[in-house]
Amino acid sequence: MATRRVPDGRQRRRQLCDAAIRLLAEHGAKGLSHPRVDRQAGVPEGSTSYYFRTRTALVHAVAERVAELDLADLRSVTETDVDTTRQAAVSRLASVVSKSLTGDGLTRTKARIELLLQASRDPEISAVFHANSQTYLRLHRELAERSQPSDADPSGVDDRALLTVNFISGLMLSAAAGGQPVIKRDRLESLLAQIAGSGP
Amino acid sequence: MATRRVPDGRQRRRQLCDAAIRLLAEHGAKGLSHPRVDRQAGVPEGSTSYYFRTRTALVHAVAERVAELDLADLRSVTETDVDTTRQAAVSRLASVVSKSLTGDGLTRTKARIELLLQASRDPEISAVFHANSQTYLRLHRELAERSQPSDADPSGVDDRALLTVNFISGLMLSAAAGGQPVIKRDRLESLLAQIAGSGP
Repeated sequence: MATRRVPDGRQRRRQLCDAAIRLLAEHGAKGLSHPRVDRQAGVPEGSTSYYFRTRTALVHAVAERVAELDLADLRSVTETDVDTTRQAAVSRLASVVSKSLTGDGLTRTKARIELLLQASRDPEISAVFHANSQTYLRLHRELAERSQPSDADPSGVDDRALLTVNFISGLMLSAAAGGQPVIKRDRLESLLAQIAGSGP
Repeated sequence: MATRRVPDGRQRRRQLCDAAIRLLAEHGAKGLSHPRVDRQAGVPEGSTSYYFRTRTALVHAVAERVAELDLADLRSVTETDVDTTRQAAVSRLASVVSKSLTGDGLTRTKARIELLLQASRDPEISAVFHANSQTYLRLHRELAERSQPSDADPSGVDDRALLTVNFISGLMLSAAAGGQPVIKRDRLESLLAQIAGSGP
């Protein structure tokens, strides 16, 4: 006997969060409401309220969803074995960043920046993103270390990580604001190679 | 005979925009409304509606005010004579950026990022910031050119300008989000010197 497929709770929450990400990107924080998420996700009225009782609960869940998707992207760069050359790692990073500047990637980027602005007023959102930003900084330190001559100033590694993280973050803000041509993937790779470390 | 001082229109508009900047920074785009601006500015009810009929008119005026204040800061860096060393120009830039990461500067930075997110949905806001971002890029090209050996690859100047602009923009986003220590002025100057150009 055929049974009607009912999405499990986890799947439905994810679906609602993904709809909320699109709303945040398109209309900003003031465009986010439970009924709008219902409509955007194409689910029965009241579904979003059932899973996320308050606006705060909804916003926190969306922040967690964005961070989870970001982390999956980051892992594709960080999960390199010792044989991965620095050049290959920088190339993967360029691909991940490049994807975040257009299309669906840009939708998530816009939502992330909306949430980051709310993070300054909401410690829980701040905590969600803090873990990822630590992972991100570690990745960039590793990239910088690979090309760091062992006798060089160790503060150079921190400097390069800080330059890289903020350069990428600035590109994302610029893409989110729009109005300017988005940097091409190959140019991005060349720039990342310059700041992630000048070694081979 | 003593007369009651009535602020002229221009002064009153500026006062209302400055109040709106504080509201945007503290509560985000959804915290901005005509009655709230009246209260924040401590002016009679209805004043903001008198000067800015619609929400769009208000938001555009606030964007122009932010851009005007930004431009004044930028000029303090760009208005250098030929005798100004690259080092002195980088030092001035570090001071301007550093101020934008804390206190009143951070208030404007947060408001600017809120407006930049709206710029992606509003061509008029986008146009307001576009002029400044061109000035900004020109400044960074000039800084890079000063330290560019004349026989070097000219694309290096563009690269450094792009790195510097986006690095600064990323720092501002990070400061706006909060939750992390803000970079110290001297370290910032050292990092800017590294990317604005490696020459003397």
